[in-house]
Amino acid sequence: MSDIDRQRANRLMTDAGIDALVLFQPEAFRYAVGAPAGVATMWGRAGAAVALVPAQVDADLAAVVSDHAAATVRRLAPEVDVRTHRIWIDMLDVTGAETVTQIDDAYRRFDLGGPRPETFDRSAVFRLLCELLHDRGLSKARIGVDLEFMPAADFEALKTALPETEWLDGSTVLRRLRAVKTPLEIERLRRASQAAEAGLRYMAQAIRPGVSLPALSAAWKAGAQSAAAEGSFSLSGHWDYISVGADLSDMAALVTPGALIKADVGTLVEDYSSDGARTFTFGRTSGLATEVFKALESAFEAGLEQIRPGNTFGAIHAAMLQSMRKDGFGEYYRGHFGHSVGGSVGIEEWPFFSADNPEVIEANMVVALEAPFYGQGLGALMIEDQFLVTADGVECMNSLPRRLVDVSEA
Amino acid sequence: MSDIDRQRANRLMTDAGIDALVLFQPEAFRYAVGAPAGVATMWGRAGAAVALVPAQVDADLAAVVSDHAAATVRRLAPEVDVRTHRIWIDMLDVTGAETVTQIDDAYRRFDLGGPRPETFDRSAVFRLLCELLHDRGLSKARIGVDLEFMPAADFEALKTALPETEWLDGSTVLRRLRAVKTPLEIERLRRASQAAEAGLRYMAQAIRPGVSLPALSAAWKAGAQSAAAEGSFSLSGHWDYISVGADLSDMAALVTPGALIKADVGTLVEDYSSDGARTFTFGRTSGLATEVFKALESAFEAGLEQIRPGNTFGAIHAAMLQSMRKDGFGEYYRGHFGHSVGGSVGIEEWPFFSADNPEVIEANMVVALEAPFYGQGLGALMIEDQFLVTADGVECMNSLPRRLVDVSEA
Repeated sequence: MSDIDRQRANRLMTDAGIDALVLFQPEAFRYAVGAPAGVATMWGRAGAAVALVPAQVDADLAAVVSDHAAATVRRLAPEVDVRTHRIWIDMLDVTGAETVTQIDDAYRRFDLGGPRPETFDRSAVFRLLCELLHDRGLSKARIGVDLEFMPAADFEALKTALPETEWLDGSTVLRRLRAVKTPLEIERLRRASQAAEAGLRYMAQAIRPGVSLPALSAAWKAGAQSAAAEGSFSLSGHWDYISVGADLSDMAALVTPGALIKADVGTLVEDYSSDGARTFTFGRTSGLATEVFKALESAFEAGLEQIRPGNTFGAIHAAMLQSMRKDGFGEYYRGHFGHSVGGSVGIEEWPFFSADNPEVIEANMVVALEAPFYGQGLGALMIEDQFLVTADGVECMNSLPRRLVDVSEA
Repeated sequence: MSDIDRQRANRLMTDAGIDALVLFQPEAFRYAVGAPAGVATMWGRAGAAVALVPAQVDADLAAVVSDHAAATVRRLAPEVDVRTHRIWIDMLDVTGAETVTQIDDAYRRFDLGGPRPETFDRSAVFRLLCELLHDRGLSKARIGVDLEFMPAADFEALKTALPETEWLDGSTVLRRLRAVKTPLEIERLRRASQAAEAGLRYMAQAIRPGVSLPALSAAWKAGAQSAAAEGSFSLSGHWDYISVGADLSDMAALVTPGALIKADVGTLVEDYSSDGARTFTFGRTSGLATEVFKALESAFEAGLEQIRPGNTFGAIHAAMLQSMRKDGFGEYYRGHFGHSVGGSVGIEEWPFFSADNPEVIEANMVVALEAPFYGQGLGALMIEDQFLVTADGVECMNSLPRRLVDVSEA
């Protein structure tokens, strides 16, 4: 099923003066169509799969996909108008065949014999897109394309193949659309966050002097994976940025008493990535680390108070920077103190809690708020939680205490 | 260290009429510079990291990278001329500091205080690139860009920012360059292939009636990872396309006596992916499966005989298709019977063993040759091995027998 709110898509497209979105990025295809774009997108080129999202709310979604991916798309997204093109993989239903001659018969019966392109045929896909736009009365329309993805070489070819269409950059519409989540998207992010946090609990139990950074990473991953298994969902990916001790470049560091252990981690559920972080020590840490952490806690709270529908993303940045200044950090600076989370490319999704950002917070956004300090010679410290923006505030998706936890006291 | 053969790069650029390559894709950056492009490339946009490869052999390589990634780049690639730009992450050496005031002093000492962009500043990067081209006398030169990656929106901005430069598509030069490997690249692909094959050995031992596809996948992965650990190298990734039985869409299928088990797998070493496949059964399979496999074996041998320097990629496709025709497959077709392997985006690297492909095979290419058959209702069958092209033929990077192995006979 598509993750797109068609009413909201209509408003955004109307505001931007476009009649439809035509999306080439595999992640955008999956978002729009609700099914994977297929193996032919592996090269990061445009033209292996295309999604059409008309502004008109009751006009069907459409997709151009490979014959190899089509069965899955039709099963997962039966409401989508699907057009197919041949890719290099020859796959055939040979049920009942007992001889090679009968295999040949099956090729002919399903019209699957004969030539296939080296990988995929971009021109054939553009021809199908041309027909599709014609069928929908959109041949000469204003079409928004994901030009923040589409390779320049492929965009040139598209403009040549469909010269009558007016191609515009639809990236901002797509980003605004993606920033507000459906219940299904929220559920993916909630699960991902829960698995990641279960991993942190598991990792915290493994912290003791002499344990290595790679061992903590493995413990985190094992905890996250077992939480997913217990919850009967699977992880489509995971990532972790863990630091141990004062040398942030030492990827094999061992835990020592009082050393800072920062774990910034996430898991992916159906390609939606969580983002969260905690800081631990084994034994009491230095006075300076304690003081820095206290400032981060205050900044985090100052930012959190500002997250509500109607406020700007910039207001959170201002509040957090002001809090750091109040606590004596005259030079500390961050380009952003967090961001949206979702299924876009990159762990951090637009928009960002950045300076003077006028973008407005809306209900059903899911955001990660982060207060980090990376001090070579001291260690890294970080607090990060994930929040669902509700009608009147936020709901936190995490439950671990935000304080600097000394696991030797547990 | 850069993986680029500068002499060959010079020849390819001279033939294409370009004076330098300017590369934006993170994988291309890593290839050219020999160090990772950094976290700011996570969004797939152009401008977080740029590599300059002048055609002139004795002109230094250069890179524009974030201040966050610069230390790693300078350490791994000391010969590269590095220019830096600020990204959103505030990181600082606070060694010796005991108070927040001393942290502030460190910011001032290293000139690291004050504003940072929301993520990265594309305009700042383009200005640095402009200065760099000016310093090298390349301001008005003919520059090849990786337009098969570069997002159209970013290319527009580049052309506006540097209007005097003549921008051309450098993609073909880059692809040709990457297709011939250095000894270090060959070693990565050899290790990756060995780990993947060790995984297949491990998986084969786990095959028995009732074992599930996910269990075979887990066994493969465990075997690959333990082989890497024994060889004292780490895997930067892994992937597997395993099918069990007649229903190719059943991702939870259980092994039954005589069912076809196809494992098409690869591991990544320093982001270079291997590619290889084998087919197994537990107990004797059907006559038709045996006959299909025999045809694939013959086709594989026919293709392998043609792989040598000077022959075309198309010759392999012709030989393999002809072999299938000779064995009675009148309609079977593949867009390609294999491809280069390497560290490019996507498991399958250009060039391909495709119909009429005039691209010429050269020594030190590493290729995967594949003969697959995907028969819904019968099962998948596949043979795939990885080969280093030598001066007068090939050296196989795999050692498992290519036959259809009945593991119940072991």
